[in-house]
Amino acid sequence: MTNNKILRIIPIGGLGEVGKNMTLYEYGDDIMIVDAGIMFPENDMIGIDYIIPDFEYYLQGKKDRVRGIVITHGHLDHIGAIHHLLEHVNAPIYATPLTRGLIEVQLNRYGMLKAADLHTVNAGDELQFGAFKVELFHVCHSIPDDVGLGIETPAGLVVHSSDYKFDHTPVDNWPTDYAKLADFAQRGVLALLADSTNSPEPGWTKSERVIDAALDTVFEEAQGRILVATFASLISRMQQVVNAAERHGRKIAFAGRSMVDNMEIAREMGYVDLPERLVISLDKSLSMPDNQVVLMCTGSQGEPRSIMGRLANGTNRKFDVREGDTIVLSSQPIPGNEEPVYRTINNLFRRGANVIYEAIAPVHVSGHASQEEIKLLLHLVRPKYLIPIHGELRMLKQHAKLAEEVGVPRENIAVVENGQVIEFVDGKMRLGERIPGDYIFVDGTGVGDVDRSIVRERETLGRDGIIVVNVEVNKKNGTLVHEPNITTRGFMLPEEMEPLLDGLIKQVEKTVKNSNGNIENSVLRSMKSYLYKETKRNPFIFVTVNRN
Amino acid sequence: MTNNKILRIIPIGGLGEVGKNMTLYEYGDDIMIVDAGIMFPENDMIGIDYIIPDFEYYLQGKKDRVRGIVITHGHLDHIGAIHHLLEHVNAPIYATPLTRGLIEVQLNRYGMLKAADLHTVNAGDELQFGAFKVELFHVCHSIPDDVGLGIETPAGLVVHSSDYKFDHTPVDNWPTDYAKLADFAQRGVLALLADSTNSPEPGWTKSERVIDAALDTVFEEAQGRILVATFASLISRMQQVVNAAERHGRKIAFAGRSMVDNMEIAREMGYVDLPERLVISLDKSLSMPDNQVVLMCTGSQGEPRSIMGRLANGTNRKFDVREGDTIVLSSQPIPGNEEPVYRTINNLFRRGANVIYEAIAPVHVSGHASQEEIKLLLHLVRPKYLIPIHGELRMLKQHAKLAEEVGVPRENIAVVENGQVIEFVDGKMRLGERIPGDYIFVDGTGVGDVDRSIVRERETLGRDGIIVVNVEVNKKNGTLVHEPNITTRGFMLPEEMEPLLDGLIKQVEKTVKNSNGNIENSVLRSMKSYLYKETKRNPFIFVTVNRN
Repeated sequence: MTNNKILRIIPIGGLGEVGKNMTLYEYGDDIMIVDAGIMFPENDMIGIDYIIPDFEYYLQGKKDRVRGIVITHGHLDHIGAIHHLLEHVNAPIYATPLTRGLIEVQLNRYGMLKAADLHTVNAGDELQFGAFKVELFHVCHSIPDDVGLGIETPAGLVVHSSDYKFDHTPVDNWPTDYAKLADFAQRGVLALLADSTNSPEPGWTKSERVIDAALDTVFEEAQGRILVATFASLISRMQQVVNAAERHGRKIAFAGRSMVDNMEIAREMGYVDLPERLVISLDKSLSMPDNQVVLMCTGSQGEPRSIMGRLANGTNRKFDVREGDTIVLSSQPIPGNEEPVYRTINNLFRRGANVIYEAIAPVHVSGHASQEEIKLLLHLVRPKYLIPIHGELRMLKQHAKLAEEVGVPRENIAVVENGQVIEFVDGKMRLGERIPGDYIFVDGTGVGDVDRSIVRERETLGRDGIIVVNVEVNKKNGTLVHEPNITTRGFMLPEEMEPLLDGLIKQVEKTVKNSNGNIENSVLRSMKSYLYKETKRNPFIFVTVNRN
Repeated sequence: MTNNKILRIIPIGGLGEVGKNMTLYEYGDDIMIVDAGIMFPENDMIGIDYIIPDFEYYLQGKKDRVRGIVITHGHLDHIGAIHHLLEHVNAPIYATPLTRGLIEVQLNRYGMLKAADLHTVNAGDELQFGAFKVELFHVCHSIPDDVGLGIETPAGLVVHSSDYKFDHTPVDNWPTDYAKLADFAQRGVLALLADSTNSPEPGWTKSERVIDAALDTVFEEAQGRILVATFASLISRMQQVVNAAERHGRKIAFAGRSMVDNMEIAREMGYVDLPERLVISLDKSLSMPDNQVVLMCTGSQGEPRSIMGRLANGTNRKFDVREGDTIVLSSQPIPGNEEPVYRTINNLFRRGANVIYEAIAPVHVSGHASQEEIKLLLHLVRPKYLIPIHGELRMLKQHAKLAEEVGVPRENIAVVENGQVIEFVDGKMRLGERIPGDYIFVDGTGVGDVDRSIVRERETLGRDGIIVVNVEVNKKNGTLVHEPNITTRGFMLPEEMEPLLDGLIKQVEKTVKNSNGNIENSVLRSMKSYLYKETKRNPFIFVTVNRN
């Protein structure tokens, strides 16, 4: 039933972030995949490690037609699910050098490195995947070596922005490739798929370069040690801290596994310039005068097991925060993560450090384009159709509004949800079917054995705790063999529970005596109503009955 | 041991928000209390409704010396714990008219209205509580009728700011009382206790008046119905929406209990001007042409049981959101509440509404002073000592930094934690003891029967779910009477569980067979390690053993 003249685009993402983690391009018999990332669970998805797209479902019947996988950049929401994807698809993977390095680390962790067919490519390269000719072009972001894609198809030219910003003074001096974008416009762009993350932000995202001045201020004022935490993938920030250390006569050490690992990859591959004379070991740094030291650590999100998390809680092994330390969180809280980040900041203050963070000084900038950049991209590329991707529905809607402001007709903008097939036929866009793929929750080693219903059960278990009642009944006369055993967890303090316990036991005894049907259900119901009456709480109740 | 010449001030608050919910002033035998509010739990405090100060502890041995309770304004973090406080202290309560009205609603809900000795006061009034002479002065905030306090004590004059901002064009045309603040400065201010909430915000908080222009834009563009959600206590916002309705020829209806209740109180007491010709019933509004209607609803925080929450989920009874509706969330997410608010916004978009919210249009302003206002207050009041209150530690630190910038010596600023006694003797400030009062968790009708340990248990229950195993053993030969019963909740999907279940049952059987001690413990341990090995998860495991 495949119509060979149709270009199909399917954005796939997670948790309302449309097209964030994968996009499928399909023409005739050829399929190419862009990115394969994970999404992080929301606060109420208790016990879930991360979430992946439902590859099995989206790719059913199509696996043999996937000609290639292109990864735009090395962030986890773009590379973190590759090892899951490779369980369903056997296709070559193309990535720029740094991205490839980060993919290798990731695949190695899951024992999948050998199984992967990895290829290094560079901005400017062209790739052919069946009907698709892909041109890679450089874009700025909060990680180096990010590429957007110009995808030439028989249906027309599609531009895929990747996560991007228009930084005029990026730390690696490599701006987004305006010329290539303008070149696409010359050739005529059928559709643009572009990042919507910062569409609610007015103006222009600040250049990474402004961090330098902020760091200078911090370094000038700091009397003691300086500790800087940032995302381990923010390679350019690492470079900026190294440069500041050199300007202010300090040596630098690195702490925390992912920070050390990424620093080494970036250094080996030439993405940071980190002269030997500046780098010292962590041990060395701890014995040097405070005002000659900078420590770069993990934990800018207050993760409890990161260096910064452990410092805040006083559980770090090698060293502690002390009076006089200046701590820079060169990051911003990931949405939903504000509470733990601010708790960490408060605890670091409590331990005597001076903490500098984004809300009070310009020590972080976003990696995504704001409104004026989004409009610039539209003017540069001049697409006939726009598909806002990478964002919650509210961000896509805002992106659409901006596009209308710069002249894209409303009917030429497709604000869609994950799994919605967008089709191009005879130069026209239309909506196809919606593939009802779900999200797969990953918990421990389990992939997909926990779903929303299980997460809801966990929420309920957590809300008021649980009560387990064990009842032993004489088979012959239906009387209790002994007093019911009642155990609770997470319900209330044992000393507060005592008066309630007597009432509960009486309640169970009475229920068993009067029961002439299913004892489990009768006990459950009577306990439930008794507890709600007495405490206004609804703990999970388990009743086990043994008959002898 | 009371030294009669010492003024003691004790800020009491919740969860790192210092002095937010109550402040004790003590001189000789006299005590006065300012505010008695609740705090809201953090995301990981599962099942907790709200948190109150440990009144019992803070007031032990002092209850008979409390001369009066002054409430600055009607927000829940200042009035919400009065019914708990009154269980410990019998003292008269003083509040301005609107604040009193809101207190009455609150006390009535808990059947405590009769027990309370309430007095109405007004800005400009003076009160005498033993050694304390209190002058009330008007301050602007996001609720009308807020007062700060000038507290004349034998040790000197203390100014207590309450939550405030310097709005030059407030909706009720009643600016903060600059003259009174300057008057205090003339008389010489020993200490200032002031709001730190917005100390990280540069500049000057926008006037409530800017909302008018934003609403005009919304009303001009809206083709269909307009639904506005805001905090039910934001009386002035109600007035602004009413005015906009009148300007644009629409009628207004109210939906949601707290919105309707507060509107009625504010209307009765003259805090809103709501002409009969503009107000219609909800039923009426549903039968009128869409472009003639405004609905004001609860649910600006996406609360699931509010009108907006139910509209987003499609579970509202009387009416639904429909294509063409314009929805304004005239509010901002309470810190930690970003996820549910944005989820609500996305769902409203999904149902076809156009949603206008703070991130994309100026439809909300803060009620708290920003940096330039904080500095202005310091210049106006010229206190010798500063005690930053109302904020997390990071905000107090930032407040202290601003104060240093305008010339308050560092050693004259006390950044303290809740329960820290601050003493003034002979015109000098010093730190006294720290009263180690805790926070009391309120869950259902229970006050203090859940503590941090129980909340941690709930977290663990929720993280990986629970497994209940019931084993029946033959008393004589120690063998199993029947196959063990295994039940799970929140662990994994039943269909995914099956292969694991066989292994588990065999594991339990083997353990019982080989056990020669405590069967419960042996089964628990062997299940735990088996499950972790197989799934990398740690569910809560309950084992009940019956011997027959």
